[in-house]
Amino acid sequence: MRKGFFITLEGPEGSGKSTQMRWLARRLRTAGRRVVVLRDPGSTALGRALRRVLLHSEAELSPLAEALLFIGGRVALVDERIRPALAKGSVVLCDRFHDATVVYQGYAGRLDVAWLDAAGRAAIRGCLPHLTILLDVPPSVGFARLHRSHDRMERKARVYHRRVRRGYVRWAARNAKRIKVVDATQSAERVRGEVERVVLAKLQGHR
Amino acid sequence: MRKGFFITLEGPEGSGKSTQMRWLARRLRTAGRRVVVLRDPGSTALGRALRRVLLHSEAELSPLAEALLFIGGRVALVDERIRPALAKGSVVLCDRFHDATVVYQGYAGRLDVAWLDAAGRAAIRGCLPHLTILLDVPPSVGFARLHRSHDRMERKARVYHRRVRRGYVRWAARNAKRIKVVDATQSAERVRGEVERVVLAKLQGHR
Repeated sequence: MRKGFFITLEGPEGSGKSTQMRWLARRLRTAGRRVVVLRDPGSTALGRALRRVLLHSEAELSPLAEALLFIGGRVALVDERIRPALAKGSVVLCDRFHDATVVYQGYAGRLDVAWLDAAGRAAIRGCLPHLTILLDVPPSVGFARLHRSHDRMERKARVYHRRVRRGYVRWAARNAKRIKVVDATQSAERVRGEVERVVLAKLQGHR
Repeated sequence: MRKGFFITLEGPEGSGKSTQMRWLARRLRTAGRRVVVLRDPGSTALGRALRRVLLHSEAELSPLAEALLFIGGRVALVDERIRPALAKGSVVLCDRFHDATVVYQGYAGRLDVAWLDAAGRAAIRGCLPHLTILLDVPPSVGFARLHRSHDRMERKARVYHRRVRRGYVRWAARNAKRIKVVDATQSAERVRGEVERVVLAKLQGHR
């Protein structure tokens, strides 16, 4: 029986996560894998409620409140969706996860990164991704791609988004075995090729 | 100028918190104090959203997810409501606070009490109550008093509520300087008298 495999996609706004996620899911299904596509927050009843509060409310929350809510929501996501899917041997693709909290509330929000990492790991209890793809784009490129109305996170100042980008790059360097950086300023098709290459190579080794 | 004073009321379902809170607020206003009445969760935009999720949703959340959400909501409550009111010299009365998370998710929910206490204190950053009143009743008495439809917390098994009660009593003993236990099996009028005596004595010393 095939073992489950847990992949997360990370990256700032406009990095093309949604498109790459869809393409990757299709590619893996073609290769005969069962694929479960999730997003964090959002793929549980609690996650959907938190998503409304965190991304679409007018309340200005502190990074600490945000971090605790994201981490709290993640507990339910791991228990209700990720662990059961992995137990069945599926590939789980998740749009953002633990790393996003470390980067957005830690590096960009100025909370202590080591503390956040420890608290976040305690909450997911060992359920760290086997592989994380960081779609790396500078804010200038990312924002130019966004045509839709911006949610609360995206309305934040440019300086914040520069901290997010730098945070992602530094965090990826500190977790280089797990987090693979893909240059997402390239065309979507080229990014797709790189993402597939990285994922299929890792999956091969995992069987 | 008078200093602000922070009082929380704790106790299991049916302990009479709401009634005592109302009476105590009136009594303190009569004594010339400015009084701000809050509840946790519930007295911020985030708190109201969390309240719907935590107390009225059908999703069965783990104690860890619950604890992180309660603690996250408390960050906003402290920043938006409690600290500003205390800075103005008000007496803040809050229906439940940090101790409730320690007791419900720790003692009753089997999370580590020391860890929860530390995480919760980190989130409130020193904003611990000057005085906490624990209205102590056994579940049998508390439940007999409840006529309204029960929310999710109240539908939990009796054995859980016995753990809540025991947890409150043990936690109060470990924090005896701050937490005063009032026997809430007495008549509401007698409880009122005891609560007022404890509060006014403490306030006197605080001026």
